[in-house]
Amino acid sequence: MENGDRAGAGAGAVGSAGSLGLRVGQAVFSSASLLFMSVGVEFFSYTAFCFLVTIMGLVIPWSCTLAMIDVYSVFVGCPLRVPGVMFIVVVGDWVLSVLSFAAACSSAAVIDLLLEFHGSQCSPRFCGRYQLSAMMAFLSWFLTAASAIFNFWFVASM
Amino acid sequence: MENGDRAGAGAGAVGSAGSLGLRVGQAVFSSASLLFMSVGVEFFSYTAFCFLVTIMGLVIPWSCTLAMIDVYSVFVGCPLRVPGVMFIVVVGDWVLSVLSFAAACSSAAVIDLLLEFHGSQCSPRFCGRYQLSAMMAFLSWFLTAASAIFNFWFVASM
Repeated sequence: MENGDRAGAGAGAVGSAGSLGLRVGQAVFSSASLLFMSVGVEFFSYTAFCFLVTIMGLVIPWSCTLAMIDVYSVFVGCPLRVPGVMFIVVVGDWVLSVLSFAAACSSAAVIDLLLEFHGSQCSPRFCGRYQLSAMMAFLSWFLTAASAIFNFWFVASM
Repeated sequence: MENGDRAGAGAGAVGSAGSLGLRVGQAVFSSASLLFMSVGVEFFSYTAFCFLVTIMGLVIPWSCTLAMIDVYSVFVGCPLRVPGVMFIVVVGDWVLSVLSFAAACSSAAVIDLLLEFHGSQCSPRFCGRYQLSAMMAFLSWFLTAASAIFNFWFVASM
């Protein structure tokens, strides 16, 4: 019973195959968001877009590092579930998930305002890429939040 | 030991004095945000501000209802900690905390853009009130998130 509960609680926690999937998704979506926003588009004149680029630049290394830990745990078979490390992972996940959500919402609000009041200044090519970037940031946030919830649940039931 | 853990986990959960304090704070800050944004200011021309007003209008009744439940629990002494009810409270808290954070971030991003590009259109009187409203929304989000975390922790350790 106790072991069954533990296994259920650890479904998406660090070191499981589910966690590896979430981390890969985060890395892919945040990279896509960063590329759509930064390559060939003038993002630096809007604070919200600079914030988005900064946060996505933080999410990518964080997700890649934890994906490597997951790969090691899944394929070599040494789950790294020390309470101290789990605590750092949970705090990092929460902070990054809050920041990426803030960045995605701010960018979406700015894009909406640009489309409404600056129809002439916001060409479809630019605004379409801004929108794609914000959408990718929302997807990346969603996966980061899922990771944070799974790990928090695991720590709380530890 | 077990009882001590339960009492520790329930520090800010529904039915405690800590929860009552958080709920009163949420109601006060969200009302302040709603009033600063809606009284005497043209908020309806910006999507983000309409969203803020809507969400604050949802947070106020939610916080007031749960504050009444807390008052009943603290002063009459009947903690309403049925698992089904706690689950609804946790889900409601999370949804409202995510939505109020989104509203606060979007409004802050729009205010920043207005100050930067529409210096002439955004009079200090209007923009000052927008800023106060966004600040109050952030404070309301912070307390809602605290409630959500305390209740989630309580449910996870139940």
